[in-house]
Amino acid sequence: MASGTAAAAEARRADPDAQIVLFEQYSEISYGACEIPLFLDGTVKDVNQLIAFTPKTFEEERGVRVRAQTRVDRLDPQSGWLEFTSSVDGETGRAKFDKFILATGARATSPDIVGVDAENVFIVRDLQDAISLEKYISDTPIQHAVVVGGGFVGIEVAESLTHRGIRVTLLQPNPGPLHVHLEKNMAKLVAELLEKGGVTVRDERMAGLEASSDSRVNAVKTASGELVGCQLVILAMGIIPNVELGVEAGVKTGDTGAFRVDDRMRTNLANVWACGDCIEVESVINNRSVISPLSLTAFKTGRVAGRNAARRGTHKPARFEGVVAAQGLKVFDGEVAYLGLTESAALDSGFSALTVSIRHRTKGALVPGSRFIDVTLVFELSRGRILGAQLVGGPGTVLRANTLIPLIRKGATVSDLYEQDLIYAPPFSPRLDPLLVAARKAVRAIEDIRRS
Amino acid sequence: MASGTAAAAEARRADPDAQIVLFEQYSEISYGACEIPLFLDGTVKDVNQLIAFTPKTFEEERGVRVRAQTRVDRLDPQSGWLEFTSSVDGETGRAKFDKFILATGARATSPDIVGVDAENVFIVRDLQDAISLEKYISDTPIQHAVVVGGGFVGIEVAESLTHRGIRVTLLQPNPGPLHVHLEKNMAKLVAELLEKGGVTVRDERMAGLEASSDSRVNAVKTASGELVGCQLVILAMGIIPNVELGVEAGVKTGDTGAFRVDDRMRTNLANVWACGDCIEVESVINNRSVISPLSLTAFKTGRVAGRNAARRGTHKPARFEGVVAAQGLKVFDGEVAYLGLTESAALDSGFSALTVSIRHRTKGALVPGSRFIDVTLVFELSRGRILGAQLVGGPGTVLRANTLIPLIRKGATVSDLYEQDLIYAPPFSPRLDPLLVAARKAVRAIEDIRRS
Repeated sequence: MASGTAAAAEARRADPDAQIVLFEQYSEISYGACEIPLFLDGTVKDVNQLIAFTPKTFEEERGVRVRAQTRVDRLDPQSGWLEFTSSVDGETGRAKFDKFILATGARATSPDIVGVDAENVFIVRDLQDAISLEKYISDTPIQHAVVVGGGFVGIEVAESLTHRGIRVTLLQPNPGPLHVHLEKNMAKLVAELLEKGGVTVRDERMAGLEASSDSRVNAVKTASGELVGCQLVILAMGIIPNVELGVEAGVKTGDTGAFRVDDRMRTNLANVWACGDCIEVESVINNRSVISPLSLTAFKTGRVAGRNAARRGTHKPARFEGVVAAQGLKVFDGEVAYLGLTESAALDSGFSALTVSIRHRTKGALVPGSRFIDVTLVFELSRGRILGAQLVGGPGTVLRANTLIPLIRKGATVSDLYEQDLIYAPPFSPRLDPLLVAARKAVRAIEDIRRS
Repeated sequence: MASGTAAAAEARRADPDAQIVLFEQYSEISYGACEIPLFLDGTVKDVNQLIAFTPKTFEEERGVRVRAQTRVDRLDPQSGWLEFTSSVDGETGRAKFDKFILATGARATSPDIVGVDAENVFIVRDLQDAISLEKYISDTPIQHAVVVGGGFVGIEVAESLTHRGIRVTLLQPNPGPLHVHLEKNMAKLVAELLEKGGVTVRDERMAGLEASSDSRVNAVKTASGELVGCQLVILAMGIIPNVELGVEAGVKTGDTGAFRVDDRMRTNLANVWACGDCIEVESVINNRSVISPLSLTAFKTGRVAGRNAARRGTHKPARFEGVVAAQGLKVFDGEVAYLGLTESAALDSGFSALTVSIRHRTKGALVPGSRFIDVTLVFELSRGRILGAQLVGGPGTVLRANTLIPLIRKGATVSDLYEQDLIYAPPFSPRLDPLLVAARKAVRAIEDIRRS
């Protein structure tokens, strides 16, 4: 979606004369997926405000033919033919292509259990999901909802529902939310932010859904056998890349299950590129392939794929420079950011990794609105190279995390971080920015280990 | 102050056995100078909250002897003797030293005109100045104040007085406030923030002060001859380093007028170091010497001076890595940040410099509290190296500027900036962070010039 439109628009810039067709199986081609929480929580009343381009405005402004509600069923890169079906009238057709860009995205995983198809069980992946859920909570009296999954989406939905006056239990099997991205001490702080906002966080696995006679689920069963009564269930259990179309056409996937591409977004087939949530990209930290389902990654890989697919021989190919994989989210009145590797991911990558954590303040202590901020740095022992970071705290936490991105990309050390003359003024920071305090602790930790 | 205490504390860490004496001519040795606006505007009622260490607590916690209210009058580095005078009883004395650290700071410049000594004319440099001014505005009915000087301090005082219910005119001779640090288009935005907050900004030079019979100034005369009636005048016309003590002892100053030191904070004399606002430091961008009167610079150079003066032979010397010179300030409900070189400073340094400016948003457009942010990038043409940046906008502007600091320190280009995967989530940023939008415009500007 973000990636497909970015690829199409960039292909048009690269070649003003090419015939470019954008196939989209649903009706919308360009909306702010990250703005769905604003629609669910009632901040944005009109869902059309989330739509950046309609098929019509995209055609007009970007000069790309759009075939919305048209699903590509089969792809034959060798012959250069594809087959499609219209979801409006079921009509099928064939089209010829020279080059093809896969931007098939990812879909929400759904467990294979009884009850997942009940009318009060939802996933929240695309705009239609959001519209259905929003309509349901507007039309139906709901006292209690269970959100299953402690990742990014689960947390966002839990907060949105809370703002709609619904009591929410967040059920997730790990020691704290966002456990893939956070050390335990930081995950605990996120759980505290959720609890403070009114969400009940339970570290338990979902064992099943209990359906009543009217085809609604009325309880979620936990692994310990307890039934948590509810009138609404949201499944936010992760995503899987949509690779079927490409795989059938001979496009190779990597260890992650997503399409394998090089830094030009080329697949193993000469006339097929891929971009967005359906590909794996390279981490700049350990050079491993990862799925980085972020809007900015989708946008950037889309542009690279579009440019390279459409470029003329004389133009230099565009390259994607890999990801730090930095992410931020609001959790009620707090903020969470994480980037790079956790300690366990760093160890798993073969680094001798260490972490330090500090608590400091977002602003000068005397400034109204000054809040706590916790910073964990993950770094390697021999040189002190920064491998990852996690931040949880008040307003200003996420923007602070951005400062680490250029450092991590350049392989900078905790000493390098400590040398940065970050801005000090009480409305924005204590005299030593929390990042510098964390860096100092890391520098000293390394010195202590060397001495001992 | 900040630098002297940092030097003394670090010297103690470096050598647990050394005799260390901290001379301070005033009574306070350690307070939050940057928090003075919070005291002036009434946020902090008790000035003692600004004090980090009293002489007594510093002695106890840092193990350093403090001689407050004791002015060092003369220094003889060759013989290792200094002379001092107590400001309490006028008693004089002599002390022997092996090594000396100059942390004499800077003072507010005061024009040599009639009226500057009037009881309603103030400078705001140190804590005593702030206490005197705060007492005056608490005790005296004031309708209108004139702040002379459009730099950092002038702007902060203008805002603080406004919050106290005083109408303020900011008089400064340049085309917009902060003109040393900002391009004209950005200075204009700062003027707009001030005007929106209720401050009248006049781009005129002060020609003189008009005193009434009761030894108060009742008007400021502008260069055009107009009298601006007022009951209070604040002079915020810049600072000059206090170098007299050092110069008399043979310590050399640089072109800026401040002490010249190397990256270990050594002066030209073997047993004299210097740190803080009385020294010049090196810009990492053009390697020129600059005065960087920032709290963090004072703190860091103080630590380097303290460590190197006290270190034993086996310890490595500490080094100061130079400055980007990044500064941020709040202007009513807006924020301003600037770092590195302006276009004219860049041209003056021999760079082929170019600027681009963009306007974008601090958060996703649909998020409550989303505000405009303007970003100007200064960069050189051949490689696109980032030389400086200026940001004016709503909350989140200053913390954003920090992201540029590691890039500028490493000599990164606008293309490097555009590659950063800065965090996107609507509560914190539009999908493309304003910094990335500015970088993209800069990249395209360079491409356009190459093509033409």
